[in-house]
Amino acid sequence: MRMYDIILKKRDGHKLGHEEIAFFITEYVAGHIPDYQASAFIMAAFICGLDTEETACLTNAMANSGDVADLSSLGTVADKHSTGGVADTTTLLVAPLVASCGLKVAKMSGRGLGHTGGTLDKLESIPGMTVSLEMDAFIAQIKRVGAAITGQTMRLCPADKMLYSLRDLTATVDSIPLIASSIMSKKIASGAGIIMLDVKTGNGAFMETLEDSKALARTMVDIGNNSGKKTAAIISDMSQPLGCAVGNALEVIEAIEILQGETPGGDLLAVALKLSALMLQMSGIAQNETAAFYMLDEALCTKRALDKLGEIIAAQGGDSRVIRDTSLMPRAQYTGNMTATTSGILSAVDCRGLGLAVQELGAGRAKKEDSIDLSVGFIMKKRIGDRIEKDDILFEIYANDKNKLISVKQKLIGCLKIADSAKKPVLICDSIL
Amino acid sequence: MRMYDIILKKRDGHKLGHEEIAFFITEYVAGHIPDYQASAFIMAAFICGLDTEETACLTNAMANSGDVADLSSLGTVADKHSTGGVADTTTLLVAPLVASCGLKVAKMSGRGLGHTGGTLDKLESIPGMTVSLEMDAFIAQIKRVGAAITGQTMRLCPADKMLYSLRDLTATVDSIPLIASSIMSKKIASGAGIIMLDVKTGNGAFMETLEDSKALARTMVDIGNNSGKKTAAIISDMSQPLGCAVGNALEVIEAIEILQGETPGGDLLAVALKLSALMLQMSGIAQNETAAFYMLDEALCTKRALDKLGEIIAAQGGDSRVIRDTSLMPRAQYTGNMTATTSGILSAVDCRGLGLAVQELGAGRAKKEDSIDLSVGFIMKKRIGDRIEKDDILFEIYANDKNKLISVKQKLIGCLKIADSAKKPVLICDSIL
Repeated sequence: MRMYDIILKKRDGHKLGHEEIAFFITEYVAGHIPDYQASAFIMAAFICGLDTEETACLTNAMANSGDVADLSSLGTVADKHSTGGVADTTTLLVAPLVASCGLKVAKMSGRGLGHTGGTLDKLESIPGMTVSLEMDAFIAQIKRVGAAITGQTMRLCPADKMLYSLRDLTATVDSIPLIASSIMSKKIASGAGIIMLDVKTGNGAFMETLEDSKALARTMVDIGNNSGKKTAAIISDMSQPLGCAVGNALEVIEAIEILQGETPGGDLLAVALKLSALMLQMSGIAQNETAAFYMLDEALCTKRALDKLGEIIAAQGGDSRVIRDTSLMPRAQYTGNMTATTSGILSAVDCRGLGLAVQELGAGRAKKEDSIDLSVGFIMKKRIGDRIEKDDILFEIYANDKNKLISVKQKLIGCLKIADSAKKPVLICDSIL
Repeated sequence: MRMYDIILKKRDGHKLGHEEIAFFITEYVAGHIPDYQASAFIMAAFICGLDTEETACLTNAMANSGDVADLSSLGTVADKHSTGGVADTTTLLVAPLVASCGLKVAKMSGRGLGHTGGTLDKLESIPGMTVSLEMDAFIAQIKRVGAAITGQTMRLCPADKMLYSLRDLTATVDSIPLIASSIMSKKIASGAGIIMLDVKTGNGAFMETLEDSKALARTMVDIGNNSGKKTAAIISDMSQPLGCAVGNALEVIEAIEILQGETPGGDLLAVALKLSALMLQMSGIAQNETAAFYMLDEALCTKRALDKLGEIIAAQGGDSRVIRDTSLMPRAQYTGNMTATTSGILSAVDCRGLGLAVQELGAGRAKKEDSIDLSVGFIMKKRIGDRIEKDDILFEIYANDKNKLISVKQKLIGCLKIADSAKKPVLICDSIL
């Protein structure tokens, strides 16, 4: 078999066989196929497409290109993945919620990049918390506590890592089969038997159109189910930040306050409950959605979910007192409010712009190597459809640099559109179970 | 400007501007763009296409990526290029023919590869002949003799060299805009003001279909004319070897015998005369095709063309006595005939297969680095449409290895199709002036 012939076949729009895709991945990871052949192939696949079977083959070849986590000793275990967005703190709610209902959660998370945040960064804002668990410790913690959240410590999916770097430099990122196989290969290699996907849609999401988001969700669910994983997806709105807080420590505080019952959960809790309910259903712990919501409501009201978050934090070396006293979380030095200069209805939000604004405050990364400031960010006080009166507070800003505190205001105001009327976005557009 | 954005633009099917294409070529040659970005771009260009303007921009950027020959001291100079085939020895006829009619010829030739032969290899079979002339000597010889044939000694079109190597490994060779720009960039950089193209069509040609051949010819002629070169093309048949002799020394002997008037020139002479006539017309030396053919006929009958070939050979250090005595040319040790086992009409030829058979005898290269045997080959005694009787000689074979002499027969017979009737191919399918 020659890589040349595989490139030629895809270039001419023909369907590749399992052996051809597996050959490409195996030989590429082994260093026997040069980057220039891989990038020519990926461009051909980008333009000519990969069908369902080819995408499944690519996913499985990448999933098997490195270590595969063995979670078999844990019984039924669930994992959850969001395609990323702004103020998308659902993991910090979902993990303790479902774990407190008896469903084990093995969550491998990532870091923030560009306008999107990352769970690992958020968790690291909790004093003492580690997010780098070796596999034995990861499994032991799930057995003991019911949930663990870690970064990748194993050599999972080296093929995906190599291909993603190449795609990032050759304008071949935004292809549904390539995105789906990249995400699902990591989820499959992560070892959980239940995979819950949250595909974001809207201007703060990777997929901006609902049609693309649905196609991505459908593709990923098919791959998961065909690989023997129980997989479901929801498509949820990212045309405004999901929670009110944007910034690492601020988002953790918001999650804690929701679990405390101190703040109305809003859209963030609504999405977290939907994801949690589907996970409980898939596991068989809840017989149907109504039963699942009942269980989750009880876990919230009794504070069992809050306590479970405390247990997870403590197990990973963090100061679990934060769940009762959020003043133990890092706070930025300077705060300031941005108020409305006109009145009207908040009609649209540049959600990606807000993500980039918080990145400029220091809370996010432009490049993977950048260091970040865990305490800075802002609280957005209004949501699309809300009435705004002149002088209403639109944002509370938290900064460690006075100049940035001032300069970010201009960015933030540019991200809001105030009009006479507004159409509220649909929060959960679709679900695939 | 970023290569990423250029790849993205072409990937999405948009038209690139002059600056973008020039940036790609300049930066790629400078080593600032990695191969994996170049190959992704070339694949996008292959699939999405390049329009006439983009192709012209690419050609000129490549033509200017290295040295450009300055032939201005020579006045009107012509060059000629064939897209390659089997027994395509027209250069050895065209150069002395038009030079003996007063049109200067500056010919930069290549070597054989795969099933196709190359003029440089053929010339090297003449004892003493050198085909590696420095620019000063090349120009001086054209001034003195009227024609010179050399390999590339200047750093012409390094961009084309780099891109061709990459295309060869990434299944992006057979694209009309990419082929056209590759050929024409070299012709433009070679410096001649008149460019005569011979685009081959049929199963022994690079372009197998007439439609593709016509499109390639049209594209190249447009590029040439838009670059200020007088450019014309013919599309000629390569569904059987053009001459009767296949193999380096054998082809030189055939060319000499045609110029001597010792052998009917057949299709080989017909194509050479058509090319020569168009060149004389473009140069203004002949007022029309009839006048050109008259001049060429005279050059043949008076042996002025034969003498001119002798002058070219002598100027390049070769033994010019070969034009009177072809026994001075190298001869293979063993000869053998292959005869017909049935009778009928020769209806089709696997021309590529014949080119590969002579390569196996040792006359051609599978890879650029391979060394070749200049004396081996075969003479094909029949042409498509010819009546064949049982025991007629089909091939005279010349070999330096007895086993190969026997084994090649099986290959050769497999390349002929004998039937009850045949349709003779059209020799010159079209011309673009």
